[in-house]
Amino acid sequence: MGMALSLGRRGLGRVWPNPNVGCVIVRDGCVIGRGWTADGGRPHAETQALRGIDATGATAYVTLEPCAHHGKTPPCSEALIAAKVARVVIATGDPDPRVAGKGIAMLRDAGLEVITGLRKAEARADLAGFLLRITQNRPFVTLKLASSFDGRIATATGESKWITGPDSRRMVHAMRAQHDAVLVGAGTVRADDPSLTVRDLGVSRQPVRVVASGRLEIDASQLVETIPQAPLWLCHGLNVDVQKWTDLGAQTFECAVQGRQIDPVDLMQNLANNGLTRVFCEGGGSLAASLLSAGLVDEVVGFTAGAMLGAEGTPSIGAMGLDQLADAPRFELAEIQRVGADLMHRWVRP
Amino acid sequence: MGMALSLGRRGLGRVWPNPNVGCVIVRDGCVIGRGWTADGGRPHAETQALRGIDATGATAYVTLEPCAHHGKTPPCSEALIAAKVARVVIATGDPDPRVAGKGIAMLRDAGLEVITGLRKAEARADLAGFLLRITQNRPFVTLKLASSFDGRIATATGESKWITGPDSRRMVHAMRAQHDAVLVGAGTVRADDPSLTVRDLGVSRQPVRVVASGRLEIDASQLVETIPQAPLWLCHGLNVDVQKWTDLGAQTFECAVQGRQIDPVDLMQNLANNGLTRVFCEGGGSLAASLLSAGLVDEVVGFTAGAMLGAEGTPSIGAMGLDQLADAPRFELAEIQRVGADLMHRWVRP
Repeated sequence: MGMALSLGRRGLGRVWPNPNVGCVIVRDGCVIGRGWTADGGRPHAETQALRGIDATGATAYVTLEPCAHHGKTPPCSEALIAAKVARVVIATGDPDPRVAGKGIAMLRDAGLEVITGLRKAEARADLAGFLLRITQNRPFVTLKLASSFDGRIATATGESKWITGPDSRRMVHAMRAQHDAVLVGAGTVRADDPSLTVRDLGVSRQPVRVVASGRLEIDASQLVETIPQAPLWLCHGLNVDVQKWTDLGAQTFECAVQGRQIDPVDLMQNLANNGLTRVFCEGGGSLAASLLSAGLVDEVVGFTAGAMLGAEGTPSIGAMGLDQLADAPRFELAEIQRVGADLMHRWVRP
Repeated sequence: MGMALSLGRRGLGRVWPNPNVGCVIVRDGCVIGRGWTADGGRPHAETQALRGIDATGATAYVTLEPCAHHGKTPPCSEALIAAKVARVVIATGDPDPRVAGKGIAMLRDAGLEVITGLRKAEARADLAGFLLRITQNRPFVTLKLASSFDGRIATATGESKWITGPDSRRMVHAMRAQHDAVLVGAGTVRADDPSLTVRDLGVSRQPVRVVASGRLEIDASQLVETIPQAPLWLCHGLNVDVQKWTDLGAQTFECAVQGRQIDPVDLMQNLANNGLTRVFCEGGGSLAASLLSAGLVDEVVGFTAGAMLGAEGTPSIGAMGLDQLADAPRFELAEIQRVGADLMHRWVRP
């Protein structure tokens, strides 16, 4: 199952709207097949693992309950039965109502032995994006904040290139590649004119770039120029003329608004409805505050530099309207690491 | 020499205005004497190490050049000569003009073999407070900042207890004990009414508590109550009536002012002139910014919690008036460590 989990993680950021599943086929103590969900979500891991082998009497280790429904491909439970697998070990069930125990039932009805729950917690962590999309209709959200020692993302004059170093920026690109989409607010687009693509890592599949902007009052020249490489999704408020943007090749999504800002819950529902399971938010401060206040952040990754910018600098997290310390969102420290000259620290929802 | 350095570090925060020296006496491969500067600075490490042993023909390892001047005690160089030590290994020279090579010369003139520079960099780091006081007339300054993930030390309503956890606070007490003095600004006294003593660690020697306050408009009830346990020094601006404070047992020091704030350079000169070699500054934001801007901070220790407070919170570092990112003070990452639920990160002057 360890190998299956590891294979499944290869699909992070590459298989949406499907889950990143891993599968290993073992017979007589030997691994005879391995597979993981292919780019774009198909073929599924089980199909990949069974391809070209004789699995008669073998054990299949799979990180998520095999599917039971006929979609664009026949169900994986059927494939395991047809391959004459004797035993299926499953890390965690699939809450998708089209599966939800039906995959396991199909296998058992066909006489296969089924064992569930092996390394379940790890599988659920790896599959968190898919599971949240199915159960809560929102994606898994990682919030990345690269700041000075004192939590500033730019000087008073708006200078932000570069507070953290090249090693941190490279790690950020690798993190982008493990998410389905990169999300920023309008302020970040106006301040930095970013392209938000994954660069210098040889990736074949770019994440979607998502901009949340109430009025779409942005000049997104880098984002528009790179549309041939990676999709650009613009999430905007009500009554916005989007013709200019669709002409340029961007997709647009109308979201509910809260005051002048996009409602973060509706934003995330829109992204989940359109298939995204893992979103990497890179700020700015207002969007970060809005997501944190709404309890929509699952993981926070900090890159902290040894520079001191002082109180006039732009804060990494905007106004949150907190009255009491007890109301502050709190995360648990999961990882600390030196990255070049900077400090990387990862915190997770308790 | 490794043992001598380790012994010397026992004196951190306990021996001002003297240096925290360590000394080991070795003969025939056996350690026959060990010593370190005693609390308050006397007796010196060499005297302690030579006590009660026959050191004829032995080698003395000492982290700082032995003194050559008659002060309250006879010079250590004389003591080593009188003890018939054959060889003295010294990590680094003493820049004090009363020594400055005279200790080494005295030993050589008496026929002892003298070797210098062994593990010099480590010794200079351990003795940095004393060396800075002698060469730059200022103490070594550690700036400690305990903040939320986004660099805030209190909520908008001033709530600050507790952002970081009990393990971090305990480590802060241990750090206080390794400094000669704890320094805070008037805002911190007004906000927190702290005692700034070292608690629950069984220390016999409390650091001096120093408050920098232009007009002494503070209500320092905890600080005053604890004067029997630890000295209270008040550094104030010009034309301030200090009678009330001296009556209460505090010592007062008049410093130059910059606008409404105490001039940080003059503040540090005052502290060095009064013997302090290692100062632990615990904020607040204005004092931190003032010391950083003046280039007076040697080490920064961050305690970061997983709480998010948002932009209305009090910033850990106040206004610094930086125009360009290139002008920002930068420190090098020296240590990262999980402390309870928090992250501890230590940065040093490059």
